[in-house]
Amino acid sequence: MKFATYKDGSRDGQLVVVSRDLSVAQYASNIANRLQQVLDDWNYLSPQLQELYEALNAGRARHAFAFDPTQCMAPLPRAYQWADGSAYLNHVELVRKARGAEVPESFYTDPLMYQGGSDDLQGACAPIVCASEEQGLDFEAEVAVITGDVPMGSAPDRALDAIRLLMLVNDVSLRNVIPAELAKGFGFVQSKPATAFSPVAITPDELGEAWIKGRVHLTLQSTWNGRKVGMCDAGPEMTFHFGQLIAHLAKTRNVRAGSIIGSGTVSNKGVEKKSRTDWSKGYSCIAEKRAMETIQDGQPSTEYMKYGDTIRIEMKGRDGQSLFGAIEQEVVPVTP
Amino acid sequence: MKFATYKDGSRDGQLVVVSRDLSVAQYASNIANRLQQVLDDWNYLSPQLQELYEALNAGRARHAFAFDPTQCMAPLPRAYQWADGSAYLNHVELVRKARGAEVPESFYTDPLMYQGGSDDLQGACAPIVCASEEQGLDFEAEVAVITGDVPMGSAPDRALDAIRLLMLVNDVSLRNVIPAELAKGFGFVQSKPATAFSPVAITPDELGEAWIKGRVHLTLQSTWNGRKVGMCDAGPEMTFHFGQLIAHLAKTRNVRAGSIIGSGTVSNKGVEKKSRTDWSKGYSCIAEKRAMETIQDGQPSTEYMKYGDTIRIEMKGRDGQSLFGAIEQEVVPVTP
Repeated sequence: MKFATYKDGSRDGQLVVVSRDLSVAQYASNIANRLQQVLDDWNYLSPQLQELYEALNAGRARHAFAFDPTQCMAPLPRAYQWADGSAYLNHVELVRKARGAEVPESFYTDPLMYQGGSDDLQGACAPIVCASEEQGLDFEAEVAVITGDVPMGSAPDRALDAIRLLMLVNDVSLRNVIPAELAKGFGFVQSKPATAFSPVAITPDELGEAWIKGRVHLTLQSTWNGRKVGMCDAGPEMTFHFGQLIAHLAKTRNVRAGSIIGSGTVSNKGVEKKSRTDWSKGYSCIAEKRAMETIQDGQPSTEYMKYGDTIRIEMKGRDGQSLFGAIEQEVVPVTP
Repeated sequence: MKFATYKDGSRDGQLVVVSRDLSVAQYASNIANRLQQVLDDWNYLSPQLQELYEALNAGRARHAFAFDPTQCMAPLPRAYQWADGSAYLNHVELVRKARGAEVPESFYTDPLMYQGGSDDLQGACAPIVCASEEQGLDFEAEVAVITGDVPMGSAPDRALDAIRLLMLVNDVSLRNVIPAELAKGFGFVQSKPATAFSPVAITPDELGEAWIKGRVHLTLQSTWNGRKVGMCDAGPEMTFHFGQLIAHLAKTRNVRAGSIIGSGTVSNKGVEKKSRTDWSKGYSCIAEKRAMETIQDGQPSTEYMKYGDTIRIEMKGRDGQSLFGAIEQEVVPVTP
């Protein structure tokens, strides 16, 4: 199934079911108005939504309309939890190598994760509002899941079963705010502005054979100012699968329905070619590009995003069809 | 006004209005079912609730019943944001002094704050479920506010106006999990289990003259296993007032209605007496007691909480009346 949340002037929007090819949609209002409702009562509501989804795909839905991603809020416009892992260790290795730091051995067995703000999640086409270009605005292209209830202490395999939906994420970061904030020791608050999500959230079965034990074996595309900068494989290099990330979060507390857990920046290892490393799959955030430049040339040359810059994040299935629709955002200044 | 959320088997419970003396309550169902609804639409709904509150206080409410704190969920059983400051610098000074570390100068102008999980907030009388006593379970007695909408970049004074409600908090912490987790640099995830809140959330006017520019000038009482261990003054030593904490959080993003912002452990400076320091007001968390012991005797002697331990957190008005009702929790093991 594929779900989106349409703007209706309210804080939570209106749930729509979207066809597999993203061409048409229909309000689900006779079943549920909000995606959180569906997550709260999945076993009862999802079969009814499945029926509507099948009718929509078969062209039998009675009130279908053309699907328009610009009308989308985040699938969950506000959520009770957003926790973001850093499951692609290559991302950590790159950034640390560039500043001459080691990756602690424990990072390969104990996931990095931060708790993010979830009161103001952004739609796929919402502008990225930034007070100053000096803050070092960066995109981070990621995959995320939305869970059902996960009891405290659940094992990774059991946590996998609690995955209800997947989305794409732009985990917007303020690179020049991060160092001083992390030095204080309490994690990110000001350095992570509002996070944006793909137009559509999809059930794992939509991924078919590309969904293998909590990993999405497909390419995540990042296009910055119209230039394809990242074609990163989200599958094999994900050190911790989503079941492991959820279990990490649930170690000392219950994780409740509607929690969003992110993968961290999707990142692939470079290939050694003569004396230089070649990162042919590109990058899913500018910080990585700058780390690559630092490793190769001693210093970064690519600047962070400026006002007017655009970022497009998308993932296609093996049939070439967009799975989640595209995140398409533009950086804008604060309007007075 | 005073609000509570009564258990009804649902995830969000039922909103009740509670009388000033906490003796009686009435369902607000003809006005709103959930506290989040009220926060989403405060200007429209709060005058209606005020009328019901006045009727209740005057003994004129038609369907009043005896108020029972054990029937309470957290006022917001799940919230879209929980961000906890560390506004009492003495707490930071104590803990750092005990381990021989300095407090950076910037901590006196730039608040410490962490983003917490808000999907599973606990009622005042809920047990504290802990997988192992070895995790070093500690209470932290705090004050918190719930906000309306706060636009990105709001100044502290404007942020003050967005405070809708206040609560007491038990910010449960796993002391022996914290060092390794903070060393990873991304803040708290596993070391902060589910947070608990007072039975009742109150509007700032309920504090009368004790509410001065974003600070609560009253004593926060902590009673551990029946022994009063903390009688800490929440007012003058709060380095950052709640408007400053909210503005810190809103620096780079919008803060939306229903966000909970905590004060951090309420903590008072000791008084130098001959060669020893005397902390006559006690402590609002065991980590502070252990820091005091370390400073005085070279090592801590008080152990963290064990199964069966109880903690009671309460605040009384100048008339001696309990303002929020009491948090009363017992530490229990995970039931298989």
